[in-house]
Amino acid sequence: MANLEIRTDGSARQTPPNDAALRQVNDPQSQVVRFPADAPLRLDSGREIAPLTIAYQTYGKLNAGKSNAILICHALTGDQHVANEHPVTHKGGWWSTIVGPGKPIDTDRFFVICANILGGCMGSTGPASPNPATGKPYGVEFPVITIGDMVNAQARLIDHLGIDRLFSVIGGSMGGMQVLQWCARYKERVFTAMPIATAPWHTAQNIAFHEVGRQAVMADPDWQGGSYYGTEARPSRGLAVARMAAHITYLSEKALQDKFGRGLQNRDAHSFSFDADFKIESYLRHQGSTFVDRFDANSYLYITRAMDYFDLEAEYGGKLANAFTGTKTQFCVVSFTSDWLYPTRDNKEIVKALNGVAANVSFVEIESDKGHDAFLLHEEEFFATVRGFLNAAAKKLGIA
Amino acid sequence: MANLEIRTDGSARQTPPNDAALRQVNDPQSQVVRFPADAPLRLDSGREIAPLTIAYQTYGKLNAGKSNAILICHALTGDQHVANEHPVTHKGGWWSTIVGPGKPIDTDRFFVICANILGGCMGSTGPASPNPATGKPYGVEFPVITIGDMVNAQARLIDHLGIDRLFSVIGGSMGGMQVLQWCARYKERVFTAMPIATAPWHTAQNIAFHEVGRQAVMADPDWQGGSYYGTEARPSRGLAVARMAAHITYLSEKALQDKFGRGLQNRDAHSFSFDADFKIESYLRHQGSTFVDRFDANSYLYITRAMDYFDLEAEYGGKLANAFTGTKTQFCVVSFTSDWLYPTRDNKEIVKALNGVAANVSFVEIESDKGHDAFLLHEEEFFATVRGFLNAAAKKLGIA
Repeated sequence: MANLEIRTDGSARQTPPNDAALRQVNDPQSQVVRFPADAPLRLDSGREIAPLTIAYQTYGKLNAGKSNAILICHALTGDQHVANEHPVTHKGGWWSTIVGPGKPIDTDRFFVICANILGGCMGSTGPASPNPATGKPYGVEFPVITIGDMVNAQARLIDHLGIDRLFSVIGGSMGGMQVLQWCARYKERVFTAMPIATAPWHTAQNIAFHEVGRQAVMADPDWQGGSYYGTEARPSRGLAVARMAAHITYLSEKALQDKFGRGLQNRDAHSFSFDADFKIESYLRHQGSTFVDRFDANSYLYITRAMDYFDLEAEYGGKLANAFTGTKTQFCVVSFTSDWLYPTRDNKEIVKALNGVAANVSFVEIESDKGHDAFLLHEEEFFATVRGFLNAAAKKLGIA
Repeated sequence: MANLEIRTDGSARQTPPNDAALRQVNDPQSQVVRFPADAPLRLDSGREIAPLTIAYQTYGKLNAGKSNAILICHALTGDQHVANEHPVTHKGGWWSTIVGPGKPIDTDRFFVICANILGGCMGSTGPASPNPATGKPYGVEFPVITIGDMVNAQARLIDHLGIDRLFSVIGGSMGGMQVLQWCARYKERVFTAMPIATAPWHTAQNIAFHEVGRQAVMADPDWQGGSYYGTEARPSRGLAVARMAAHITYLSEKALQDKFGRGLQNRDAHSFSFDADFKIESYLRHQGSTFVDRFDANSYLYITRAMDYFDLEAEYGGKLANAFTGTKTQFCVVSFTSDWLYPTRDNKEIVKALNGVAANVSFVEIESDKGHDAFLLHEEEFFATVRGFLNAAAKKLGIA
């Protein structure tokens, strides 16, 4: 893998493309469904995407009644590799803590599906995919998409798998936004839903952090107006800066202080230079440089844009409850006390709206000092909540 | 002034140097004291700076007893132009709300001094100043400095003005760090002190945000390893991104939401593009582009580094109270409820340490939803606190 070394002398201009990551765009190591050119996906913007490819992973077995399917929706920088070795990083799946045989999302019992989102870079159609009009990668010719578009694309996959109703739709962060959008657009198709550490709309501060990241990418001359594919350069420095800024928002102030504090990295005293003296600096640089090895900068632009556009209240006439009118879905909303990206306050807005339509909803605020990323970690109370909620609902449906 | 237009097509590579800002480096529109080459400033790093120039402004008159001098210490992106028109932006001084005739820091009564910090770009010696060894601007040959070095340089100025003891040393944010450092290093010379919205050390999260900013600057190829002076390019895009990220930390989440929310900028609907659809995006881009018109990117690197190095506890043997042993200074520590950059918690650490040496200290937490930048705004309770504290102390000293 190509490693981006962020140098202080400003000399490092170019980073060789990461072949392992680029290969996933057109030839992903996962299952794939391709919808032909004559079956376009109509987008919220009015534009269309065709052909449409969805790359996905499944775990466990679909039962005869097709009643045990769980769709997991991934977050901004996640992908379909929930519980298997990642083909680029060779690390474990991003949610293998909670998804697997005997785990809270039990693949011995449930058929778990996760699709790379529309706009992603791990095999589903996105800005790095070939634009049928030119034969070259879309770049910024890719249409701006929404969370709703992602969900519509997922619904195509669920149709393809012959599943009428999902036992559950589960996701954290942007995954939670997709969960909410599923429950709004496909009411009859969602038996239970777990929106986790999420929000019904992006706040000004949420948008602000994303805009910093986008400007960092677009300020990098190697971005080349989005047409860097096929050149020797990629906007790795800009994307690394974007990732570093975002990463701060994923952790609580306390988590950063407990983990790094003012600790020095491999030294006893300040260097009186711009080296990574502090552990936190070294950690952030590492987060930036490993991220660019696996993620496409244009995908980052499009996905953050989709999140910023997300506003379920505005979409449903200025009243969030309208999104859930008539819902029969059983909801479990989960937030984490130290999450300042999508704080409990935002999650409670979802609960309030669901109560407004007398929906079946439980709400759990998990005590954690780990910040937003707590939903990715082994948090006992969270795991018990997921297990308990799914078990009770499975019992109702008679899932063995 | 050169305006940086952040374009989405990646084509804008170069920004012409801002002559108005560059002129201030060597020929500032303010008073100046130059210490000759044979009177070097010894730095905390062990290195020396010579010659040393300090550019400063004064307001009001020094009384016969030289007992009415107030030193104001400015924050990261501030300068000596506290209460006069800024020579580059032509806007009012950054603290003209609170400093002036009849105002809480009353220039009819007090002799107010503010010096551009060491490492700055408004006339005091900094990375854009000529390096005597080469005759060219220092760039990254400028030594890494500390808050202590800034204060030592200010002490030289105070000596030059013939003032033994300052009636007060006042500053917010990084200015507050300088106040604390003054009280630690020059105990006998500070009668009263107001550290405002500050901290006795930089936390991991504080360092993290600064590191993002530095990486954004250094990732800009126009930074040229810090040697961009005299070329046609400056790292304006990188510096703009750094400013945007930092600016988010200066405002509270609520202030952003109240001021911008999800409001659209000059449009009725989403553009489905990467334009600044949202007001908050437009605002941040504006913050970035106006900042680069007046500030030097290398100064930004050096000053953020000095702040990250700041740890008064470590400097005094791991016990913050030791910094204040034997102090006779009268302290008023001020924090703001919605400041998440230097929250009340950090300010209370200062109070705790002062209590530990039985210092004369009052602490006021001001109710405000404006975030860190509240200290720059007209906040009634804050203004009353400053006025009351200074008046009472002036009475003690018999200042008319």
